[in-house]
Amino acid sequence: MNPTAQIEGWSTPRLLLDADRLDRNAARMRARCEELGVTLRPHLKTAKSLEVARVAAGGNRGPITVSTLAEAEYFAAAGWRDILYSTAIVPAKLARADRIQREHGARVLLVLDDRDAAAAIGRAAASLDARFGVLVEIDCGEHRSGVEPASRELIALAEIIEACAPHLELMGVMTHAGHSYALDELPRIRGLAEVERLAAVASAGLLRAGGHACPIVSIGSTPTVLFAEHLEGITEVRAGVYLFWDLSQLSRGVCTLEDIAISVLATVIGHQRRGPSLILDAGALALSKDIGANHFMPNAGYGWVCDVDTVQPLGSLTVGTVHQEHGSVPLPDESWFARLPIGSLVRILPNHACLTCAAYASYEVLRAGKGIEQWPRIGGW
Amino acid sequence: MNPTAQIEGWSTPRLLLDADRLDRNAARMRARCEELGVTLRPHLKTAKSLEVARVAAGGNRGPITVSTLAEAEYFAAAGWRDILYSTAIVPAKLARADRIQREHGARVLLVLDDRDAAAAIGRAAASLDARFGVLVEIDCGEHRSGVEPASRELIALAEIIEACAPHLELMGVMTHAGHSYALDELPRIRGLAEVERLAAVASAGLLRAGGHACPIVSIGSTPTVLFAEHLEGITEVRAGVYLFWDLSQLSRGVCTLEDIAISVLATVIGHQRRGPSLILDAGALALSKDIGANHFMPNAGYGWVCDVDTVQPLGSLTVGTVHQEHGSVPLPDESWFARLPIGSLVRILPNHACLTCAAYASYEVLRAGKGIEQWPRIGGW
Repeated sequence: MNPTAQIEGWSTPRLLLDADRLDRNAARMRARCEELGVTLRPHLKTAKSLEVARVAAGGNRGPITVSTLAEAEYFAAAGWRDILYSTAIVPAKLARADRIQREHGARVLLVLDDRDAAAAIGRAAASLDARFGVLVEIDCGEHRSGVEPASRELIALAEIIEACAPHLELMGVMTHAGHSYALDELPRIRGLAEVERLAAVASAGLLRAGGHACPIVSIGSTPTVLFAEHLEGITEVRAGVYLFWDLSQLSRGVCTLEDIAISVLATVIGHQRRGPSLILDAGALALSKDIGANHFMPNAGYGWVCDVDTVQPLGSLTVGTVHQEHGSVPLPDESWFARLPIGSLVRILPNHACLTCAAYASYEVLRAGKGIEQWPRIGGW
Repeated sequence: MNPTAQIEGWSTPRLLLDADRLDRNAARMRARCEELGVTLRPHLKTAKSLEVARVAAGGNRGPITVSTLAEAEYFAAAGWRDILYSTAIVPAKLARADRIQREHGARVLLVLDDRDAAAAIGRAAASLDARFGVLVEIDCGEHRSGVEPASRELIALAEIIEACAPHLELMGVMTHAGHSYALDELPRIRGLAEVERLAAVASAGLLRAGGHACPIVSIGSTPTVLFAEHLEGITEVRAGVYLFWDLSQLSRGVCTLEDIAISVLATVIGHQRRGPSLILDAGALALSKDIGANHFMPNAGYGWVCDVDTVQPLGSLTVGTVHQEHGSVPLPDESWFARLPIGSLVRILPNHACLTCAAYASYEVLRAGKGIEQWPRIGGW
């Protein structure tokens, strides 16, 4: 079947995944991690898909990172055994994490950054007669969560975790340079990668010097992993958005347009002569209201409007305004109405892939521009 | 069971619906429409729920409005017969709309605002041997879609639709004063309600004067319906967010805090002493990144943090920053850490209900603060 004819039969809005680009993105990151001598523990909060996880891991069921227990359950049920749940755990969630371990023979690694919470998790684990590996989260500068690197607080936490043996086992440290997304100059990203690395390595060093175990030294954000000069002392990296890329990453110079593997198929449903503008059937729900890319790329809007076949930008058309089910695309002139009559299909490159994908229950997977299958996604919590 | 003890057993984040408030909100709008002498055709794009629709309609299966064909299918399958699909239709979507009519005996009213599109829809309807009622969309000033009120374009469209008989039947006009959301002064909202009314009534008048049928004269936005002085000449109104309310509507003075029927149950998962701030397990996916309320209420953030039992704001705590699964709540001082230890539950009043609800597959429905059942939602397209 002619790929375009096939796509023209699809209802919109719909989430498309270019599997050729995904393969390339995944292979590049695997090669990068091999070169750096670290284990890749892909973060699947963006993809939320068994099939994408398989591609990310190069066919094996290796270590993975998730952001929700729903994801942990989903991957564990499909045979993934080494799962880092990267959001801090609270006692009320522990029974579910324990069930995931017992029912599926998986290991759910927990993250903690607070003494009281650690003691409470230890008590809850004991009352469940459960055993969990624990990483202490280190704050390498984003100041969202985590303890100071190589701090007394870190040691205090390690001692509390160890006192909860055998229900808790200290497995190391993890940190996340989320503030790398606020940079668009490669030398500064490289500098931040070194800050992230040092925060983790120094923390691991302090733990080991005090006689504490620290087999895992985990860092991760796509930009810092890609641009780090080296990752000495790091055992594993977590990264996720590199599988798909988006305008947020493009705006920071971290990927190219041709790397972006994800797009939203949308239909022109109206021509507004005032303005003038195109109306698309992809609005706030289909694209999300994230405009993180706009900081460095003010014309990112809610996504770039691209040709349905070539996925090349149509002039500089962007989705400028969104309502729940409507996206408005301001036009430089009315000649675009003839080029994109009502009923035309376009593909929108998302501002922020993680949020756009979250609106969809599945991916329509393309190879060489042709739809080959649908891959489901796991949503919710 | 003690309501608090019950809620403490729930996983988070979770979408809560206060059915007592929903009942009140629904009854007030029904009474308002009765007073105005218009039919209420509730817009279910916010609620996306059969049970909420039943409450909105006062127990009957009356006329409703939807924004996606997935919603149309869902309601038609449950026996709703009079469905206005308020997003402009394109030929590729017509077979599905036709199936909804045939399989469920429903009437799917279509909306059009373009001559070429109307002719194409007419041809598609003929080739399906289908029959559809059609409303012409009027632009009453928002300039998103629709033709000029009482314009030659309106008559041209009416003629094209009538030429497609019996496959298309002109049923009237509809307009939507979406720009009412940009106002926060009641006299101005009242003024806009009159503009909206006049756009619809003048258009209906022109159609009828030309011998065209116009049984339906439909307007709708929650603020204009509530504050219109009268709705003479209008046959029906569409409104949706009044069922739940949110900070966007509160910020415009259109509802009170005690009207808001929807909230997100979240857990404190971290204490960040830098700042200081609370970390919640409700972030960009659980709350959405919509900050529409902030125009008139800069402290709306991504939602107000409220007591889990009373749903009263906790000081002036708001979710100030969101990451995918983390919400950060800046604190005036560290005393809040003792008041909200890690593991505490809070309820977040959403910035924009339509977008927040869209992240959830169901509502946890409360009566007198006690969970009574779960109501599913229909997502996707």
